[in-house]
Amino acid sequence: MYVKKITKLVLTPLVLIITTFTASFVVQAQEHPNLILTKDGVEKIRDNLGKVPLFDATVSRVKQTVDKEIAAGIDTPIPKDFSGGYTHYRHKQNFIIAQKAGVLYQILEDDKYAIYVRDMLLQYEAMYKNLPLHPQERSYARGKLFWQSLNDSNWLVYMSQAYDTVYNFLTEEQREKLENNLFRPFADFISLENPAFYNRVHNHSTWGNAAVGMIGLVMDDEALIQRALYGIEDDGLPIGGIDNDGGTIKVEGQKKGFYANLDDPFSPDGYYTEGPYYQRYAMYPFLIFALAMENVRPDLKVLQHKDNVLLKGVNALLNLSDADGEFFPLNDGQKGMSYYTASLVTAVDIAYHYGDQNPQLLSIAEKQNEVLLDEAGLDVAIAIRDGKAKLFTKSSINLTDGIDGKQGGVAVLRYGNEDLTLVFKYAAQGLSHGHYDKLSYSLYEKGDEVIQDYGLSRFVNIGQKGGGNYLKENKTWAKTTIAHNTLAQDGEMHFGGNYKTASTEHSDLYFYDDTKDNVQVVSATEVNAYPGTKMHRTMALIKDDNFEKAFMLDIMKVKSDEEHEYDFPFYYMGQVINGNFKWESPTDLEPLGDKNGYQHLYLEGKGKPATNNTKFSWLGNGKFYTLTSVAEESDELLLTRIGANDPEFNLRRDAGFMVRREAEDTTFVSVVETHGSYSPVSEASLNSNSNIANLEIVEDNNDYTAVSITDVKGSKQLFIIANKDASVSAKHSLTIDNKKVSWVGPYYYK
Amino acid sequence: MYVKKITKLVLTPLVLIITTFTASFVVQAQEHPNLILTKDGVEKIRDNLGKVPLFDATVSRVKQTVDKEIAAGIDTPIPKDFSGGYTHYRHKQNFIIAQKAGVLYQILEDDKYAIYVRDMLLQYEAMYKNLPLHPQERSYARGKLFWQSLNDSNWLVYMSQAYDTVYNFLTEEQREKLENNLFRPFADFISLENPAFYNRVHNHSTWGNAAVGMIGLVMDDEALIQRALYGIEDDGLPIGGIDNDGGTIKVEGQKKGFYANLDDPFSPDGYYTEGPYYQRYAMYPFLIFALAMENVRPDLKVLQHKDNVLLKGVNALLNLSDADGEFFPLNDGQKGMSYYTASLVTAVDIAYHYGDQNPQLLSIAEKQNEVLLDEAGLDVAIAIRDGKAKLFTKSSINLTDGIDGKQGGVAVLRYGNEDLTLVFKYAAQGLSHGHYDKLSYSLYEKGDEVIQDYGLSRFVNIGQKGGGNYLKENKTWAKTTIAHNTLAQDGEMHFGGNYKTASTEHSDLYFYDDTKDNVQVVSATEVNAYPGTKMHRTMALIKDDNFEKAFMLDIMKVKSDEEHEYDFPFYYMGQVINGNFKWESPTDLEPLGDKNGYQHLYLEGKGKPATNNTKFSWLGNGKFYTLTSVAEESDELLLTRIGANDPEFNLRRDAGFMVRREAEDTTFVSVVETHGSYSPVSEASLNSNSNIANLEIVEDNNDYTAVSITDVKGSKQLFIIANKDASVSAKHSLTIDNKKVSWVGPYYYK
Repeated sequence: MYVKKITKLVLTPLVLIITTFTASFVVQAQEHPNLILTKDGVEKIRDNLGKVPLFDATVSRVKQTVDKEIAAGIDTPIPKDFSGGYTHYRHKQNFIIAQKAGVLYQILEDDKYAIYVRDMLLQYEAMYKNLPLHPQERSYARGKLFWQSLNDSNWLVYMSQAYDTVYNFLTEEQREKLENNLFRPFADFISLENPAFYNRVHNHSTWGNAAVGMIGLVMDDEALIQRALYGIEDDGLPIGGIDNDGGTIKVEGQKKGFYANLDDPFSPDGYYTEGPYYQRYAMYPFLIFALAMENVRPDLKVLQHKDNVLLKGVNALLNLSDADGEFFPLNDGQKGMSYYTASLVTAVDIAYHYGDQNPQLLSIAEKQNEVLLDEAGLDVAIAIRDGKAKLFTKSSINLTDGIDGKQGGVAVLRYGNEDLTLVFKYAAQGLSHGHYDKLSYSLYEKGDEVIQDYGLSRFVNIGQKGGGNYLKENKTWAKTTIAHNTLAQDGEMHFGGNYKTASTEHSDLYFYDDTKDNVQVVSATEVNAYPGTKMHRTMALIKDDNFEKAFMLDIMKVKSDEEHEYDFPFYYMGQVINGNFKWESPTDLEPLGDKNGYQHLYLEGKGKPATNNTKFSWLGNGKFYTLTSVAEESDELLLTRIGANDPEFNLRRDAGFMVRREAEDTTFVSVVETHGSYSPVSEASLNSNSNIANLEIVEDNNDYTAVSITDVKGSKQLFIIANKDASVSAKHSLTIDNKKVSWVGPYYYK
Repeated sequence: MYVKKITKLVLTPLVLIITTFTASFVVQAQEHPNLILTKDGVEKIRDNLGKVPLFDATVSRVKQTVDKEIAAGIDTPIPKDFSGGYTHYRHKQNFIIAQKAGVLYQILEDDKYAIYVRDMLLQYEAMYKNLPLHPQERSYARGKLFWQSLNDSNWLVYMSQAYDTVYNFLTEEQREKLENNLFRPFADFISLENPAFYNRVHNHSTWGNAAVGMIGLVMDDEALIQRALYGIEDDGLPIGGIDNDGGTIKVEGQKKGFYANLDDPFSPDGYYTEGPYYQRYAMYPFLIFALAMENVRPDLKVLQHKDNVLLKGVNALLNLSDADGEFFPLNDGQKGMSYYTASLVTAVDIAYHYGDQNPQLLSIAEKQNEVLLDEAGLDVAIAIRDGKAKLFTKSSINLTDGIDGKQGGVAVLRYGNEDLTLVFKYAAQGLSHGHYDKLSYSLYEKGDEVIQDYGLSRFVNIGQKGGGNYLKENKTWAKTTIAHNTLAQDGEMHFGGNYKTASTEHSDLYFYDDTKDNVQVVSATEVNAYPGTKMHRTMALIKDDNFEKAFMLDIMKVKSDEEHEYDFPFYYMGQVINGNFKWESPTDLEPLGDKNGYQHLYLEGKGKPATNNTKFSWLGNGKFYTLTSVAEESDELLLTRIGANDPEFNLRRDAGFMVRREAEDTTFVSVVETHGSYSPVSEASLNSNSNIANLEIVEDNNDYTAVSITDVKGSKQLFIIANKDASVSAKHSLTIDNKKVSWVGPYYYK
């Protein structure tokens, strides 16, 4: 540890030398606060107190929270519990409150807040010196205050801010004590002593890097700043090793540090490869450290790195939410997480202030009803006060995945004002939080799930459920292929469920077209998930005048070298209304299989198609839905329910419908209609029947797949996709029912 | 039919003779409108147009609806469908719109509305003359326009109002045509030709009686009025016979007519024996006919009958709703039905206007955001405009059941502002819509179910689900004992599921005490459900300072002549968090039994108590709940799921927890705590553990049952119930743990 101390001693005079050249930089480096709050910013805030309603309301609420905690007294218990337990909760609450108290000290100039932060930090200093590893041994990188280094890093990210705000309030002696016995050892512990945690490309490492960097900025410790940005040069780790979630710890040519975490997981569009749930989680350290760098070291342009990818990330994230603001649970994602969460307050305010002052962001801030207590938050609150807010409208969007945007992506098709939203995933694996679900989708009507993506199997922070950690059903169910709305072959997972293989592959976009309001199409292919089998899935949202609402058309074209058993599930949300086929329901329920997720599905019914179309209707959230699917005589139709082999009730007992088909090449064509409504108050059942009289594959070969949709009044629509040429300028013509159809571009609809 | 015509001819001069004595009465009888709208009322309304916001808004909305229908044109299709089908929907829509159009004609004086009503009525007249019975044969009393006479009666109740409003617009010739070919035959059909429907004490007959009475009032036909009030003298029906729902059609000494339907099903407190769902349904004909009588024949004081029981009924009904205004689904009740339904707009406005102008009713009317377009509605809207509305606060209430209030009842205990609500049913059978669930309960936190009552098995008006009618699972599941939160013995239903026996019995109140805020108790006994077995259940809502929130204490004391297998279920709403005992979960699910509802329960887990307290926790609606139950070593603990033997998916896949115990005499003592919260946005899990360290039966004999509750901090509370003497003045003393406890009244708590 003495080495680093020397580094600092060496550095300080160096900075003083630089002073003579770039005075403003060094003034910033010396004065406090300068990390998130700045001297100027604080003055502006003080000048505006009492004049900006949303800012004042936030101050008042934060004050109430902090005052209550101050009254309750400081507690820094000896670490003992997993998340969900008291000591975990208390230490987490401590850093959250300390950061807020520090901000209040700056804004309100009331010493009691500084005293609170000071006393808490000194209490931590006294404890930390002799603190052993956390007694819970489950983590691949145990922390000291918490069961994993990740949470220790959370602590340091917040406490760095708290320290910065009271820096000048403390005596030099107190500062030295804190820096030598608490902050520097703490930073070393989560980095040097935990390279498996610190030196990865992973949201864990992002937190670690930001933590080390932020305390480095406050302490003006260049070594720590460099370690934050570039990682540990030689971590001595072997290639391989896995973390608690099954993610690989070190790969060949491992990148590391904050820049690597910014470069790799973010696509140029701002899509974060782990998915929105983890993007939301990583967004805080990404932005708050980038902001700190912007304040202290603007020369390094961290906030602008990779063509402003962080600000683009905020936009991507907001667009990966349903009409209620809840993030789509792509990969591991806990449902219900939304843009109302604290890290999105940070994200929205920073994106507004440091971005292009998009007035639509203000309407999100209004909904959040809270702003950051810094210059960005003040700026947002002032703009809202001044009536600048505009409605945040979400349109269809196609987000690439991968460092260069060349590893597939995620498309979100939206009809109307989020009346119908299709989320189509043709992305890369998504690191250790990825699921084996190439070309899968979910469907939403406003904020309600019509066809769900299961999300994760975890009760975050609920101690009774495995310490709040990932449950084994996350691996045995949530990550499996059959848990998703995509094709499963011979009861196997995509890539055989092999993480390493899956991590090297991705699906490919065939084309994306949201230029027309009434027909929006995304189409992608996957050739690696099942070697020898090619899947080409084309999904469209279509609004036809003869239909009450928009519907989803799904064409999954499968080509294979040999015959397989294909399972094609629909995880519909709601209660069965009826089907147009007969099914047998067993009296005793048995699991559908014994592995790859099938062991968690009960078979509740089994039937055969009655006609050339299989129809299945359900009622969910007061609306009717009907699936119409082109049937083959040999299809088996399975009604399933999640929950088999789940003695701890870790899984939701949700329903599914599945088409099982033995074939070599085949095409699954389906339409999901949303129609009508039911109100238990008026007891009016409106438009409860499907509007489709016939769904038919009228042509299907290597060049073209054509589908006709005939509604109950006899009108016929034709959708054709060119299977080989996605060029927008290619000319096609095809004879269907003795009529020649000609068009330009990858698809035809009329 | 000529007989009735003569009756009228005879009557008219009679009325004229009376004229000389009570001029005002006859003036009323001759002028139109006089049924719901009156000449004076209409004038008052016209004077106030544009001045009363809620009234104007309602007029505007109704106008929009009616104008749209007028634009679409009149359709009176040949009857064909069940509810859920087009012809059913259309005819229903017709009478609803015609009534509204008539009102608009009066208010707005625009002839187009009268023309619309006139033309529709004449179209019906042309069709009705030769109309056969409805082709659907399922009903015990088929209608002509609809599949059951019930819906035909709905039609006439509304069309009578429509006719009254356009009476003076029609020519005498048109009126005669309508009266002779449509209204009078229609009234005769639903009464004389359908005595099995008309001559009962049942919500069906209430509609029938009101229909006949209302058209009688408009046509000034005393014979019809008398038939409405007193039924058909000699209906020629045999004793017995059952309707579609299994209700007996004719019993010995059958009462009949509107008065009978007012007298019998309503207790003096205004509780309607079928339960709130059907009270809501019957409320409209009850009130609208009573109001018509008040307007046309105030001398008969129908609205004031039985000490204003109808107005009391409105109050009872409003109190039988949860914090969201949804009615408790006692007996057959479809969940989600609430005081936002149209018949409750009628009820609230009439109760305000003709009752004591309770300003709390105005806040309900505000929430309904709609008023009746008559004098009552105007009155309500004016009062709201003038700021008279006060919050409708629901307190604890005990409602007797039975004609004299002596057939048990329903108690609703409420803590705080509906923070915790216990609905305890110790009532009579509730006619054909009753369930076999003596001493059962449900528990709510605000508007969320904690421990649910299943409600009915029916998708009202959803044609695909058995024509929208009762499904067979209503009988095989919803009505059974094991479907409810009460004691089932030897796998049998209360009263052996025999409707006739059940109809002669009821539970008895032991005592009810809501005088203290922190302890509210209801206690009742049942000795007939299982001959030889006495159940005595005492339920309390308790708020103790050492607990975060109020909890429910449940003491079910069972005494029997012989040993039985007792099942004691808890239909909790949510996902399992954990239990303090081990359970085995079978890989294959089998039904728990083969009859009496057990055939619909899957066994998902089975265990034995691990300690003297069985604990079981779940998470529902973002809150934690824990059941703590005093265990016996031999108890079996069963985790169940509804849905076995339900191939049509008519039942919800909801969970249950059940204690199974072999015993002769035994006492089930349980506490259900609601505690803490979980937010998927902040991911904060607060207070997720039970606060009870020990629950113990410290004394249990014929005289007293004493329960001690020790919380995790070691505080102990004692609850004692005197089992033999419920007198409020009786003095008791008991030695517990060598300490003498003395108190006055049926229970002790400290």
